[in-house]
Amino acid sequence: MSHSNNHVPAIVIGRLPLYLRALTQLASDGRHVTSSQELSEKLGFSSAQIRKDLSYFGEFGKQGTGYEIELLEQALKEILQVHHVWDMALVGAGDLGRALANYNGFEARGFRIACIFDSASSKVGTLINHWRVLPMDALRESVRARKIYLAIIAVPAIAAQQVADELVEGGVRAILNYAPTTLSVPPRVKVFHIDPVAGLQSMTYYL
Amino acid sequence: MSHSNNHVPAIVIGRLPLYLRALTQLASDGRHVTSSQELSEKLGFSSAQIRKDLSYFGEFGKQGTGYEIELLEQALKEILQVHHVWDMALVGAGDLGRALANYNGFEARGFRIACIFDSASSKVGTLINHWRVLPMDALRESVRARKIYLAIIAVPAIAAQQVADELVEGGVRAILNYAPTTLSVPPRVKVFHIDPVAGLQSMTYYL
Repeated sequence: MSHSNNHVPAIVIGRLPLYLRALTQLASDGRHVTSSQELSEKLGFSSAQIRKDLSYFGEFGKQGTGYEIELLEQALKEILQVHHVWDMALVGAGDLGRALANYNGFEARGFRIACIFDSASSKVGTLINHWRVLPMDALRESVRARKIYLAIIAVPAIAAQQVADELVEGGVRAILNYAPTTLSVPPRVKVFHIDPVAGLQSMTYYL
Repeated sequence: MSHSNNHVPAIVIGRLPLYLRALTQLASDGRHVTSSQELSEKLGFSSAQIRKDLSYFGEFGKQGTGYEIELLEQALKEILQVHHVWDMALVGAGDLGRALANYNGFEARGFRIACIFDSASSKVGTLINHWRVLPMDALRESVRARKIYLAIIAVPAIAAQQVADELVEGGVRAILNYAPTTLSVPPRVKVFHIDPVAGLQSMTYYL
């Protein structure tokens, strides 16, 4: 198997986590083999699309016998680099930050919250789950010292750019951004936006 | 202005909420006119892309003078049908449901939580923000009686399909799904998935 960051379209990369999620679900149902047809029914992409996406990374399926779930799952984990667990900094200890801190679905899929930051003195020092909330002015040095490359921004829109700047200065290279605003970051830094309202609006168009 | 559901690619529709969000932000900064160039810098899409996307819906910009922010904002709200506020059912009153119930960014962008459901008898009847949590077995009839067409699923993956089935039976036509699983719904029903881990995995590929 070989792959290069330069040649696989970002839209294909964006679908790999969904393939992986479906495979993990099949494996947990005790299944060993699947097909592009079955994945197509589960995910809503065409089976041709799925075969083409996977073909960027090698030959996984056999004509007529389909995909070995465990092998493909492992391959996708390696391609996405989630065969080990990444430490993340969570910035923002409000309702959303709290929900993320208590979410137990991260670790099985390659991620772990390592520290939580907030700017409110009323929150700093309090415990959320088993983390003690750290002050925002420790953010940059803390992520740098711990070699944390991923962060989640769960602060209000107005504070998000400043947080992003400090994360980038601390060496963070990928940001999951829950603030409903576009962040300006250097090209080397990846940002993935989570905006539920944008999702809702893209559906009301059709209603 | 005219538009048809059949002719505009879904990927274009998916970008409109981001244009709208950027325009609203500019307006709140006191601005009156913008350009595809400025929107490009804010959003990271090319200005040609932005002009092409908007041209599906009419002539908004003038050569050399750009877009009138308020006019374009209003037009996008009408296209996305968020010039009025939609009632939503929220299913799941755990940490995530609670964070969503307390989120104050919905209404200005066209949405309002109208009722909250949970299956746990320990949660039913309790207050979250100003909503009293309703029992899951009231879900289908409740959304039908209130003519609610949008819902948010914030329950564990294992319960999500059952909830989706009941929502669809109750007449819901668009679902924002936070459960990390793919839902099977009739083609007329729209689903938008929010899976933060999939977002993280699509970034670790590049690290």
